[in-house]
Amino acid sequence: MTQYDLVGIGNALVDIVTQSDDAFLAKHGLAKGGMMLIDPDRAAHLYSELATAKESSGGSCGNTMAGFVSLGGAGAYIGKVRNDQFGDVFRHDMNAIGVSFTTPAVDLGPGTGLCLVMVTPDAQRTMCTFLGAAADLTVADIEADVVKAAQVTYLEGYLFDPPAAQQAFVAAAELAHSADRKVAMTLSDSFCVERHRDAFRAMVEDHIDILFANETEILTLYEVDKFDDALQAVRGHCEVACLTRSEKGSVVLSGEDVHVIDSEPVDSVLDTTGAGDLFAAGFLYGYTHGRSLAESARIGSVASAEVIGHYGARPETDLAALVKQRLG
Amino acid sequence: MTQYDLVGIGNALVDIVTQSDDAFLAKHGLAKGGMMLIDPDRAAHLYSELATAKESSGGSCGNTMAGFVSLGGAGAYIGKVRNDQFGDVFRHDMNAIGVSFTTPAVDLGPGTGLCLVMVTPDAQRTMCTFLGAAADLTVADIEADVVKAAQVTYLEGYLFDPPAAQQAFVAAAELAHSADRKVAMTLSDSFCVERHRDAFRAMVEDHIDILFANETEILTLYEVDKFDDALQAVRGHCEVACLTRSEKGSVVLSGEDVHVIDSEPVDSVLDTTGAGDLFAAGFLYGYTHGRSLAESARIGSVASAEVIGHYGARPETDLAALVKQRLG
Repeated sequence: MTQYDLVGIGNALVDIVTQSDDAFLAKHGLAKGGMMLIDPDRAAHLYSELATAKESSGGSCGNTMAGFVSLGGAGAYIGKVRNDQFGDVFRHDMNAIGVSFTTPAVDLGPGTGLCLVMVTPDAQRTMCTFLGAAADLTVADIEADVVKAAQVTYLEGYLFDPPAAQQAFVAAAELAHSADRKVAMTLSDSFCVERHRDAFRAMVEDHIDILFANETEILTLYEVDKFDDALQAVRGHCEVACLTRSEKGSVVLSGEDVHVIDSEPVDSVLDTTGAGDLFAAGFLYGYTHGRSLAESARIGSVASAEVIGHYGARPETDLAALVKQRLG
Repeated sequence: MTQYDLVGIGNALVDIVTQSDDAFLAKHGLAKGGMMLIDPDRAAHLYSELATAKESSGGSCGNTMAGFVSLGGAGAYIGKVRNDQFGDVFRHDMNAIGVSFTTPAVDLGPGTGLCLVMVTPDAQRTMCTFLGAAADLTVADIEADVVKAAQVTYLEGYLFDPPAAQQAFVAAAELAHSADRKVAMTLSDSFCVERHRDAFRAMVEDHIDILFANETEILTLYEVDKFDDALQAVRGHCEVACLTRSEKGSVVLSGEDVHVIDSEPVDSVLDTTGAGDLFAAGFLYGYTHGRSLAESARIGSVASAEVIGHYGARPETDLAALVKQRLG
C-alpha cells in the first residue's frame, strides 16, 4: 500500500472564470475562442477589468487530479505557486476537493499563475494564461517523500518549455523509479511537442512507463501523418501508451497487447476542454486499482464523456458513481 | 507466379436493377429499403412486372471480384448458375469485366439466382433475392485447377446456409492449402453468423488465413458487445483478421501486429451497399501484390470509399488509378 495512488506534477494555475461579452474581447484585442499566453502586466490589467469571477484551482494536471479524487483515488499534487492571494486560492481549492498539496509557496519571483477564462453569451470560452510562478518549477520543488509515496507520478507536458522544469521531470521520474513506482506523462499540446520534440522523445524512451497523447500530439512526436504510423512508432517505447482520438475512442498499447476502446456516448458535446485530462484521470484510476487496461480505458472514456457534456474542465458529477453505473 | 491472384467463391446472382415507385412496392407488399429472400414463383412474377431493367452479374463476392480486377488484379470466380437466360447474363458479364468464370452451368434444378433491386425516386433501394442455383453449390462445383492456380481463395459467408456449400468451402480450403495457397473468408452477414456460429468458428479456426468481418459480424461471432472484446477474441485465430468499422475505419490484426487504419474521406455517402465487398477487394489486392498490411487496408479503404460515394455496389471509377493517386 502506498499513501497516494497518484501524484500529479503540473502547471499550478488558478482558473478565473467570468461572464464577458464581445465588446470586452474587442476592447482588449482578444480573439474569441482562442488561448493566448500573456505577461504579468497584462494579466493584472485584464483581471482588474473583469466582472465578478469564479476562482478555483485549474491547469491540465489539476483537472486530472480533480477527476482522480472524484473517482475515489487518493491523490497529491506538486506545483509552484507564489505566496500571494491566488496561491492561497489554489491551495485552498486543491485541499477542498481532497487533493493533498504541500509544495511550499515561494516568496519571490512572479505571482501565482492564472488562467483568465472569459465566457461570452454564445458559450465560447476565450482564455488568457499567465504562467507566473508555475513555470519556475525546479528540481528543488519535487517533494521526494510525496513522489516515493505514490504508486504513479504523472507529469504534465505543458511544463516542458522551461529547461529547469524538464530537469525537474527527470528528477521526479528517477525518484519514482528508485522507489519502484511508475511514471506517466501526457504530451499535453502538439505545439509544445513541436518545440521540444527531441527532449520529449528522450523522456518517453528513458523515463516514461505510461504515455498519454491525443492524435495530433502523437503524430507530431513522430513526424508522421497517419495515425497507424504513429501507433507503430510508439509501440515498445513505453510500457503503456494511451492514444486518444476524440469521438473515435482510444487505442491502448502495451507490449503485444492492444485495445481499441470506443468513446462513450455524449448527449451533446458542449466544451471539450479537459477531455484529455479526464481520460488520464480515469485510466490512471483504473490502472492503480487493479483494473485491466481495457477497463481502465473505459473508465477514462466515461470520465472524459462527463466533462465534455458541460462547460468547464472539471467533473460536475460523482465520477465514482458514474463509473459504477456504466461499468458495474 | 500463379495464374490468378484471387479466386472468389460465392453466390452467383444476377443483379436486376430497375427504377420503381412506392405504388409498385405497395402492390407487391415490399418494405422500402429492405432486403428479403423470395421463392422462384415470386421472383418470376415480380420480374414479369418490372419495368426495363439493367442486368449484370452481382452478389457480394462478385462485387469483390469486380473491384479486384478494376484494381489490376487477375481474378477468377466459382459459383453456380443454371443453364438459362440469367446464367448466360452472369457469365457474359463476369467475362466482360475481366473475371475468369468457368464453372459449368447446370441443366437441372432451380434457375440462376437473382437479386431484384427496385430503386425508388427517393434513391432508396429495395431488394428481393432469389438464391436459386447459387445456393446449390457443392464440393463437385469446386474447380480444383482454378483454386490451385490462385494465390488466395476467397469465400463468401452468405453461402454458409446450405450444409453442402459449407462442405464445399472446407474442400476448397483444403485444396488451396494443399497447393500452399492462402484462404480468406468474409463473415458477410451477422444473421448468417448467428445461425451458424459454431460452424463459422470452426471454419475460422481450422481453415481461414485471412478473415474479413464488420463490427456487427465479429461481435456476433464471439457473442460479445464491445468491439475490443471481439478484437481480443479473434487475435491468433487466423493469420490476418481485418475488422471493418464503417466511418471508424478498420483494424487489422496479424500475430503481434496491429494496425488502426482510418476510413478515407467521402464527399457524401450515397449507398453503403458493397462497402465491405470493396474493402476486401482492396485489401486482397494489396496483400497479393506485396503491399504491407497497413497499405493493403488503405487500398481497401480507398476502394470502399469509392463505392459508397455513388449508387450501386460496383466501382464506377478506375480503382487502380484512384489508388495510385491516393497512395502513390
